[in-house]
Amino acid sequence: MSAYTGNLVCVRCGAVHPEPALELIGAGCPACVGANVLPQYDINVLPGVRPGWSRGRATLPLVDGQPGLFRYRALLPISDDVTPVSLGEGGTPVVELPRLADSIGLRGVWVKDESRNPTWSYKDRLAAVATTKAVELGAETVVVASTGNHGAAVAAYAARAGLRCVVLTLASVPATMKTLMQAYGAEVVALPTPADRWHLMGELVRARGWMAMSGYADPPAGSHPYGVDGYKTIAYELVEQLPAPPDAVVVPVAYGDGLAGIARGFADLAALGIIARVPRLIAAEPFGPLARALATGADTAGPVPVGPSVAFSTASPFGTQQSLAALRGSNGAAVATPDNDEIMDAQLALAGGSGLYLEASSVTAVVALRRAGLGPGETAVVIGTSTGLKDVGATAARLGEVPVIEPTIVALDKVLR
Amino acid sequence: MSAYTGNLVCVRCGAVHPEPALELIGAGCPACVGANVLPQYDINVLPGVRPGWSRGRATLPLVDGQPGLFRYRALLPISDDVTPVSLGEGGTPVVELPRLADSIGLRGVWVKDESRNPTWSYKDRLAAVATTKAVELGAETVVVASTGNHGAAVAAYAARAGLRCVVLTLASVPATMKTLMQAYGAEVVALPTPADRWHLMGELVRARGWMAMSGYADPPAGSHPYGVDGYKTIAYELVEQLPAPPDAVVVPVAYGDGLAGIARGFADLAALGIIARVPRLIAAEPFGPLARALATGADTAGPVPVGPSVAFSTASPFGTQQSLAALRGSNGAAVATPDNDEIMDAQLALAGGSGLYLEASSVTAVVALRRAGLGPGETAVVIGTSTGLKDVGATAARLGEVPVIEPTIVALDKVLR
Repeated sequence: MSAYTGNLVCVRCGAVHPEPALELIGAGCPACVGANVLPQYDINVLPGVRPGWSRGRATLPLVDGQPGLFRYRALLPISDDVTPVSLGEGGTPVVELPRLADSIGLRGVWVKDESRNPTWSYKDRLAAVATTKAVELGAETVVVASTGNHGAAVAAYAARAGLRCVVLTLASVPATMKTLMQAYGAEVVALPTPADRWHLMGELVRARGWMAMSGYADPPAGSHPYGVDGYKTIAYELVEQLPAPPDAVVVPVAYGDGLAGIARGFADLAALGIIARVPRLIAAEPFGPLARALATGADTAGPVPVGPSVAFSTASPFGTQQSLAALRGSNGAAVATPDNDEIMDAQLALAGGSGLYLEASSVTAVVALRRAGLGPGETAVVIGTSTGLKDVGATAARLGEVPVIEPTIVALDKVLR
Repeated sequence: MSAYTGNLVCVRCGAVHPEPALELIGAGCPACVGANVLPQYDINVLPGVRPGWSRGRATLPLVDGQPGLFRYRALLPISDDVTPVSLGEGGTPVVELPRLADSIGLRGVWVKDESRNPTWSYKDRLAAVATTKAVELGAETVVVASTGNHGAAVAAYAARAGLRCVVLTLASVPATMKTLMQAYGAEVVALPTPADRWHLMGELVRARGWMAMSGYADPPAGSHPYGVDGYKTIAYELVEQLPAPPDAVVVPVAYGDGLAGIARGFADLAALGIIARVPRLIAAEPFGPLARALATGADTAGPVPVGPSVAFSTASPFGTQQSLAALRGSNGAAVATPDNDEIMDAQLALAGGSGLYLEASSVTAVVALRRAGLGPGETAVVIGTSTGLKDVGATAARLGEVPVIEPTIVALDKVLR
């Protein structure tokens, strides 16, 4: 039994919208500008679910025999009857980084390595829940605006579910990302600007009845409301995996759906009495719309000026209201990471120092962690959102050519460092 | 306590070699041509290990509090004192493919998705154990010959352990693979031919005392003997994860170290009384050296003629004696998959039909499964060794360009299928 009430609630005005609400998915609240509607839960129903997990650390209401992150389906916004669309997502490891912790002066730092998901990014958590909801509501075609990770995840889950998938992307997206989305059978087209994609998505939802798998409000209100709650499972897993809840969680953000979803997961854990307080959430964002809103006390985040960024999948001029609220509600922070060289240096330092090769957007979280002002006794988790393989060209540009040599030690010695 | 006796045993002559045996690692048996030496175990010591795992299906001797695949360290060839070098490898999901099973007429087919490992291939299992052994034996520099996956895995684990890593590769290897290996800080050089790499490795082992992390005998005898036993954990996990042991396991093979390691894992499970019989092992190999040896009754596998292959990481003219023995010992089979178009078609069919995008070499196992002659009541597991992201260019060559369109439904309709 899921604690989901069947309602969506506006994060700004609190208006309650009963499901099914296909036109609300991706459009945000009809009464508010740039505010998403998100699922409502009643955790009082949860005693009916067997408390299944225990490693002496926490007890979460698990449902046996469910694939991937659907073991948490009691806390996910899906019908009790629907068969999950799963590729075995979630359950990603936390990898400790003792050298990074020492260099910053923290008690402990872990990477939650989300590159271990089915399409090698944390967007699989969103796509698993959003696609399950698409099946539940009878959608036949899904449409998504994406620079790559989100589109690839939706394409893969749509393939798994037998749904048609149309991806609206940008010409500037790396070739690897385009091929990946196409490989899953999605129909991929590029549009001139991000806003073009949102406006076309809106038309397609209204004219064709397609389900939007990402947000299309302008300014952005946030992503697929059911999909956002897929990110809650990151919080659940962290509490299961770590010796104690971390003091801070650093999340790379574009619009902040991942951060908001993780915050909602921690809120569930607090409501269930599993954790005493919510960790500080720290946003890493190339151009700092949330950072500016926190500094100025603004109600909305952005637009701020943007430029070319190696962290292309998070290089947004906007934050969303729920991500701003999540930062304020957790006594969190936001750190702008505009320096491309600094990001790429950090990417190679992490790979060469710890064996984790994460995409540039993920690495912004490591950069932000160094500036987040955490205290020496504290612990932090960095969300490693995706693999460096998604844009290997950016890394290659900073490395030398592989030399071709004769097969002798003398020739080898000439090229070794 | 590990059941490892501290000895290496020749797979051909049975000669026993006590550890430390640095010069034996990668060179094979000094008395036999092309025969590896592999770790010896005494499972009678295992009752001292707490039987830790049980889901009503199997009981394996687990060791608590160990990272990644080292929870199986009681069955791994490492000292009880050494701290594992781990990036949270293993524990990869099995994803069921009901449509593929129906189309072949099998009772069930699963992919063991090894792209969920730290460097996104099953080579991480080898690298985790081999690097732990390198630390145990005090090696400071490791050297590996690789077309990509093996080298990337060794580079990452060497980075994790603080060891220097030199990779000997080929100029023909895809750019993504080269960048990936370099990203982890390895020193990567290309040599004219595969045999050039082996001969140079041998010189480096003898002259510099570096540890070989892959085999360098010519003809090939097999890989790092301790690393090979990292693959045993695939068998352990399959028995934990599936409702019953599969009837067949299909493994993409170059020299067959993965297949031999998996066979050794199943042999352990049989010796422990956890399974009644070893599944049939089926080798998928582009050019068929093992297939020919099985057909002719030969003692050794290959060389056979080879050509250009999209499955470049497995396109070997040789098999090894232990992989041939594993096939014969399990009443297995080997299937040649020389048709590049067939492999690439299968790659896109699997991604578009099931949401799993695997590298071409992995997909040879799906091609082989169709020809393996399994019976309608049988079940099979395909080992998905690595991600399609490792050579995305090969996929892109079969897909159209992403069109750039004006943001209207009319323009979109013109380009949609």
